[in-house]
Amino acid sequence: MNVPLLIKKKRDGQALESSEIHDFVELYTRGEIPDYQASALLMAIYFNGLNRAETSSLTEAMMHSGTVVDLSEFTQAKVDKHSTGGVGDKTSLVVAPAAVAGGLMVPMISGRGLGHTGGTLDKLESIPGFRTSLSLEEFRRTLAACGMALIGQTEELAPADRKLYSLRDVTATVESIPLISASIMSKKLAEGIDGLVLDVKSGSGAFMKTAERSRELAARMVEIGQAAGKRVCALITAMDQPLGQAVGNALEVKECLEVLKGRGPADLADLCRELTAEMFVLGGVESSPAAARARFDAVIASGKALEAFARVIERQGGDPRVVEDDGHLPAARHRESFPAWQAGYLNSMDAELTGRASMALGAGRERLDSLIDPAVGLVFEKKVGDAVKPGDCICRLEFNDAGSLPVARRLLKQAIQIAPQPPGAQPVLLGREPA
Amino acid sequence: MNVPLLIKKKRDGQALESSEIHDFVELYTRGEIPDYQASALLMAIYFNGLNRAETSSLTEAMMHSGTVVDLSEFTQAKVDKHSTGGVGDKTSLVVAPAAVAGGLMVPMISGRGLGHTGGTLDKLESIPGFRTSLSLEEFRRTLAACGMALIGQTEELAPADRKLYSLRDVTATVESIPLISASIMSKKLAEGIDGLVLDVKSGSGAFMKTAERSRELAARMVEIGQAAGKRVCALITAMDQPLGQAVGNALEVKECLEVLKGRGPADLADLCRELTAEMFVLGGVESSPAAARARFDAVIASGKALEAFARVIERQGGDPRVVEDDGHLPAARHRESFPAWQAGYLNSMDAELTGRASMALGAGRERLDSLIDPAVGLVFEKKVGDAVKPGDCICRLEFNDAGSLPVARRLLKQAIQIAPQPPGAQPVLLGREPA
Repeated sequence: MNVPLLIKKKRDGQALESSEIHDFVELYTRGEIPDYQASALLMAIYFNGLNRAETSSLTEAMMHSGTVVDLSEFTQAKVDKHSTGGVGDKTSLVVAPAAVAGGLMVPMISGRGLGHTGGTLDKLESIPGFRTSLSLEEFRRTLAACGMALIGQTEELAPADRKLYSLRDVTATVESIPLISASIMSKKLAEGIDGLVLDVKSGSGAFMKTAERSRELAARMVEIGQAAGKRVCALITAMDQPLGQAVGNALEVKECLEVLKGRGPADLADLCRELTAEMFVLGGVESSPAAARARFDAVIASGKALEAFARVIERQGGDPRVVEDDGHLPAARHRESFPAWQAGYLNSMDAELTGRASMALGAGRERLDSLIDPAVGLVFEKKVGDAVKPGDCICRLEFNDAGSLPVARRLLKQAIQIAPQPPGAQPVLLGREPA
Repeated sequence: MNVPLLIKKKRDGQALESSEIHDFVELYTRGEIPDYQASALLMAIYFNGLNRAETSSLTEAMMHSGTVVDLSEFTQAKVDKHSTGGVGDKTSLVVAPAAVAGGLMVPMISGRGLGHTGGTLDKLESIPGFRTSLSLEEFRRTLAACGMALIGQTEELAPADRKLYSLRDVTATVESIPLISASIMSKKLAEGIDGLVLDVKSGSGAFMKTAERSRELAARMVEIGQAAGKRVCALITAMDQPLGQAVGNALEVKECLEVLKGRGPADLADLCRELTAEMFVLGGVESSPAAARARFDAVIASGKALEAFARVIERQGGDPRVVEDDGHLPAARHRESFPAWQAGYLNSMDAELTGRASMALGAGRERLDSLIDPAVGLVFEKKVGDAVKPGDCICRLEFNDAGSLPVARRLLKQAIQIAPQPPGAQPVLLGREPA
């Protein structure tokens, strides 16, 4: 393979052949193409894009660079949910057990938080004892026992994606829709799923800042999934303010337990219902959205969703008592109020800045090897649209290190706008692919 | 220095600060920035370009990555000539001695041929004994003794350019006008010159295929040189057919000796006169182009240019008898004619394909470590515009290995078009920067 010619072809705006993409991924993964050629190609792709066929070829090549899990021994429909990441974005912990309680199997492989966004693995690990690093064999046994498993990326799945992602991270080639799509989908398609519901976040706290870019990413991922013969749909959802009230790992687990008990903030519960309903329809256990939503409500009301969560917590080494008594979750030693400084309405609450405020308290990580504090974070007692009087608690800071407060407060002050008039409606659901 | 942010800045179309460019070049040269980040930046530069200030900063940073020769001890004006490379492009071997005979000092550091283009060093080394790899100290002593020196790139000059150029070569980031400009000018400015005449080739056998791109490259290099306080001008000259009649190393030396003796093909002699005249004006030994051309004619007519060439050949270890008797140059054992296959006029003669035909005979190299045969090559007895009858010799193939003939003949057949009508005029001089 003549790699400079391959790079030149993409640089000059031509489409690459499927065989060229497969050879490139294979040779790169084996270390036979150096990083410096891969990064030049990635930058050329950043500028000139990849068409549908090229994106599918890249996804497939990365997927086949490692193990592709085969779950055909299980009779249930295997449906996963994946979010592109946001602040307070904790739906997996509700959606997965609710989907299982409703008759699906959920083989969920998640990531860690980085920067201002949280990660499902960190939230789960705030449950004392919960282990997320399972081998593929343990993953399979957990699925058999619980109908679900909640684990982290393993070495065996899509190693080409891992290698390419690390390179993109240090060469300013992350923000490319075809590369993002192929990266996400290569890992998801390796999980052995029949269907996938994507939650593509859009707004100040999301990777995609505009609805247009989010729709583009959603459409591209749905195309890839369908080209691979899977049932895939995507919801485009707002990430202009945190989802729900809690931002921070144990705090978010607590909030999810509330939703699983039929309580919790409406925006979060509603989005969990929509996502789970999409999973039921994709998995074929319901045929209409209305019936699928009712099935979600039923597994919440019956307590079956909560039971499913308790089962997987116990199976993965966690303390199942947290389900009944969240006093078993880690708690911060101190709390303080972030009060309104004037009367009016909460007009906006920049999700990225609130995410950074939570990071400042210790809930998030700058680098993949940073340590996080599972107990700390923020609880928003007011959301955008709420009226406030001076001194009202907008947000509770839960912290262990008082030294972290000034930065967190400064970021919150930057994030929050109070206006004399209430803002317009703040729908969470912005769109769907296919429409 | 945060390298991913630097790459992102250029990727997003922003201009880099001079300090950022200097730091990047310094850290990259020291091996503290890896190739994979450098190649991503180079590709971003390929797409988004560099403005004048950025290009000057890059040139300066690469120039100062190594030794910058100081020739201020010499009283003559130091003027060099540099060509962007073509087929049969042998002017240096006439221009340098003519300029010296006319009162200038010429510190000339040249390259080797690669692909279809020839290189001054290979031509010089076809003179038995001629050494081009001189140390900077030998370079200085040769200048003192002969007023000129004809050497190859040394390790000490612009090492950053050498490292970056090797990377560009394997990452499809060569064809960028700001990168080409900075690469050429960083080496030339490190030579210790006062003035520089650039010969920017344009056409099928040149790096720049269109007059527009050639003008752009010329303008950019002139700007860089002027920003560095040097007197610089550029001629844009045709490279749609080989320059002169000979293509191949010893054959080209022979042709240059003819020009130095007041004979030789008119297109070559005329271009040598123009380039040398520009050098005389830049160097201040003449103030009008007409007087400068007359000075060229005078040093040819008096034999002083030929003497200057003989002196430098002897000083650099070559056999000076070649000047009087080209029988001392290596000669191919066999020759054959490439005849016209129909009557008409030579309509075009693709320079790149003729260059490749010469390479096929062994005169050029595919890779920098390939061996070349100094004796072989082509001599065009007809040029574009000439009338031909079937069987007329268009081109003489001089070869040692009959096995190389079929490929060379096939390439020549592809290169040469015979038409019933004569083509329009084929001027060599297409433009000048500044105009």
